Amino acid sequence: MSTIVSVDTSDIRFPTSLQLDGSDAMNPDPDYSAAYVRLVTDAEDGHDGHGFVFTIGRGNDVQTAAIDALAPFLLGRDVESLLADMGAVWRELVWDSQLRWLGPEKGVMHMAIGAVVNALWDLKAKRAGLPLWQLLARMTPEEIVDLVDFRYLSDALTREEALDLLRAAEPGRAEREAALFADGYPAYTTTPGWLGYSDEKLERLCHEAVADGFSQIKLKVGGDLDDDIRRLRIAREAVGPDIRIAVDANQRWDVGSAIEWMSHLAEFDIAWIEEPTNPDDVLAHAAIARGVAPIPVATGEHGGGRVMFKQMLQAEALQVLQIDATRVAGVNENIAILLLAAKFGVRVCPHAGGVGLCEAVQHLSMFDFVAVSGTREGRMIEYVNHLHEHFATPTDVRDGVYRAPLAPGNGMEMLAASREEHTFRGEFALRG
Amino acid sequence: MSTIVSVDTSDIRFPTSLQLDGSDAMNPDPDYSAAYVRLVTDAEDGHDGHGFVFTIGRGNDVQTAAIDALAPFLLGRDVESLLADMGAVWRELVWDSQLRWLGPEKGVMHMAIGAVVNALWDLKAKRAGLPLWQLLARMTPEEIVDLVDFRYLSDALTREEALDLLRAAEPGRAEREAALFADGYPAYTTTPGWLGYSDEKLERLCHEAVADGFSQIKLKVGGDLDDDIRRLRIAREAVGPDIRIAVDANQRWDVGSAIEWMSHLAEFDIAWIEEPTNPDDVLAHAAIARGVAPIPVATGEHGGGRVMFKQMLQAEALQVLQIDATRVAGVNENIAILLLAAKFGVRVCPHAGGVGLCEAVQHLSMFDFVAVSGTREGRMIEYVNHLHEHFATPTDVRDGVYRAPLAPGNGMEMLAASREEHTFRGEFALRG
Repeated sequence: MSTIVSVDTSDIRFPTSLQLDGSDAMNPDPDYSAAYVRLVTDAEDGHDGHGFVFTIGRGNDVQTAAIDALAPFLLGRDVESLLADMGAVWRELVWDSQLRWLGPEKGVMHMAIGAVVNALWDLKAKRAGLPLWQLLARMTPEEIVDLVDFRYLSDALTREEALDLLRAAEPGRAEREAALFADGYPAYTTTPGWLGYSDEKLERLCHEAVADGFSQIKLKVGGDLDDDIRRLRIAREAVGPDIRIAVDANQRWDVGSAIEWMSHLAEFDIAWIEEPTNPDDVLAHAAIARGVAPIPVATGEHGGGRVMFKQMLQAEALQVLQIDATRVAGVNENIAILLLAAKFGVRVCPHAGGVGLCEAVQHLSMFDFVAVSGTREGRMIEYVNHLHEHFATPTDVRDGVYRAPLAPGNGMEMLAASREEHTFRGEFALRG
Repeated sequence: MSTIVSVDTSDIRFPTSLQLDGSDAMNPDPDYSAAYVRLVTDAEDGHDGHGFVFTIGRGNDVQTAAIDALAPFLLGRDVESLLADMGAVWRELVWDSQLRWLGPEKGVMHMAIGAVVNALWDLKAKRAGLPLWQLLARMTPEEIVDLVDFRYLSDALTREEALDLLRAAEPGRAEREAALFADGYPAYTTTPGWLGYSDEKLERLCHEAVADGFSQIKLKVGGDLDDDIRRLRIAREAVGPDIRIAVDANQRWDVGSAIEWMSHLAEFDIAWIEEPTNPDDVLAHAAIARGVAPIPVATGEHGGGRVMFKQMLQAEALQVLQIDATRVAGVNENIAILLLAAKFGVRVCPHAGGVGLCEAVQHLSMFDFVAVSGTREGRMIEYVNHLHEHFATPTDVRDGVYRAPLAPGNGMEMLAASREEHTFRGEFALRG
């Protein structure tokens, strides 16, 4: 028996805006931040549960306050019974009728639930002595579907259909786990492509990406069409014809402008167009997908939750589904989304970067490969080489692939010294 | 010249759960609450700007913190220039790149922007000496479209189309204003229909609703089918065949269960089915609308924002559009939604009740009648007789209609004594 004795939160911010790292058409000056939570128990094993919500600066205090608001649900609770039924934990938090009013299932309160759910998964994985991906991939199909709330999903995916999918993927789990250890999981890099970088820096980083073994890079677009054409020409010449180049508009366009703008970029052989418009606009994404075909549309890093992803799939509004480790209500909801993607036969290429997102989301893709979709075909996890040094178990990306993490936990634990040093104490600019 | 010298926020909660007022299939025990903001200036006119976000209890502290996070955008700003370009204010807040990450355009941070925008409108209306509806209804079509952000709307409504709509409604503004003063704006009442009420109380309140002159009542459904049938039979017998009865499932169902359940209620001549499923599920609402026709589908009180409403209209997913005064980013965004509804020819019947929502939203319907849609046909504003005594200018609902408010402002100003008395100092139950 052990209980949760403390829900420690921290408002952690890195002043990344000073270098224009992470600059794009909509986010000129992000300060990569984490609304961080650490669940402390009175067990003698020394294990804490870590989780966070990634934000880009202002408002990280609000996000932290939202996590604080969940502390009464956790303090004094029996850890073993919480961890034994993580599906029940998810429902208890997401369906709290009063908190639900603040979303429902979207925005600050929903992401706060995600931080807490992820922290509990971290604790569960550490107690099991397994990395999260392996803990999940060793659960039975019945145990996995019990994590998922199928309410609102049944017109696209029932519990029974999900069970069938998972059972069909049971044979070969061991071989795929071995394949992960042998080959890792493909990565692509966004490091070269931030809008704020000079042409020289872009070209140099493109060469480096190829040298580092990446088979896909991504460029931010949508600021200025002539700039985009010039930068894509530089990038295509630097990487050659065999490296894929995706582009990311970060919600910049309406339907008409997306289709028009992309018609000017198509000559550069575009791997996908990411976030062409508002992330909740299913019908607009569907119209854009028809208008820019055969270029695939990718979206999801700002997808409000499972109901939005369900609709994106139903409407054929995306061809590349981008989960994010901290946008939805944690591991459980991302499993629901992975199951939906598998049902619709759509590939999943997670959003990462930021701070700690690579560390976190790799577990979900590896679980998906072993136990859900059973394939890495056409799939890859975003990679950006920022801020990994602050994590207890930083990603190991070599030769263009994520190496399977071995350390117990969900990957989200930030070093105590980093948390202390980067706890926000005011300042940074109000506006960019 | 005057400046904003203080952004005062309060976490105000009423323990309504004790009486089961407001109980429905998803919200068994709401504590009606307001994350409240008062903008104070150094002008000698004594006018403050008041706004709030309505919530149902837990999390009202988080919502209040989100409003606090906007104070740096307002403190020290020149009031005259802010009020002179409210479109610019909206864009500045909604498009702040760092805060935007927390939505975008949905959830806690978006509603916080709404509170601040509404408080500025309150100040603007008080300075003009006009009730908000009249201030808006006297603006030119050009001034009105300048309030609206058409980004993401252009596949359904352009600025030029909105201008045409508003210009077409210019003739007759004076007559419709006079008609409002003469006849008011129709109301319907939800007072009888809360799930937690006994059959006797339901029957008594149905009789009272008819006696009070309402031509529509609304019952909560979705808890238990047999209960719903029994309660609808009681209500229909009490009100007779000529009073409309709408039902509200508060997001209880999936597509299949919504259609099946409603097939059992159709015999009671249902005016609309409200919130049958997840409020962001455009495709599910469209499927339900097809499945329950000719019963209209109503939704919107939890609609994340203008992009969701646009899609609901594009997909013919709703036949009754329910705006809410505090769910979206304030007056400006609700004007965008009213324009979309006018474009698609869909009637608007606002959500109200809660605390202060009736006081606030009546201004939007009256503005719509005078200057946008030009009609009250089939339209009515929800009314619940709760908590009006706490407001400086409470609604005047008589003979089943909202009387046009005359007092300057947006109606959201809560009495100082009520704010003080109901400032939350802890306790209430953690869970229902």
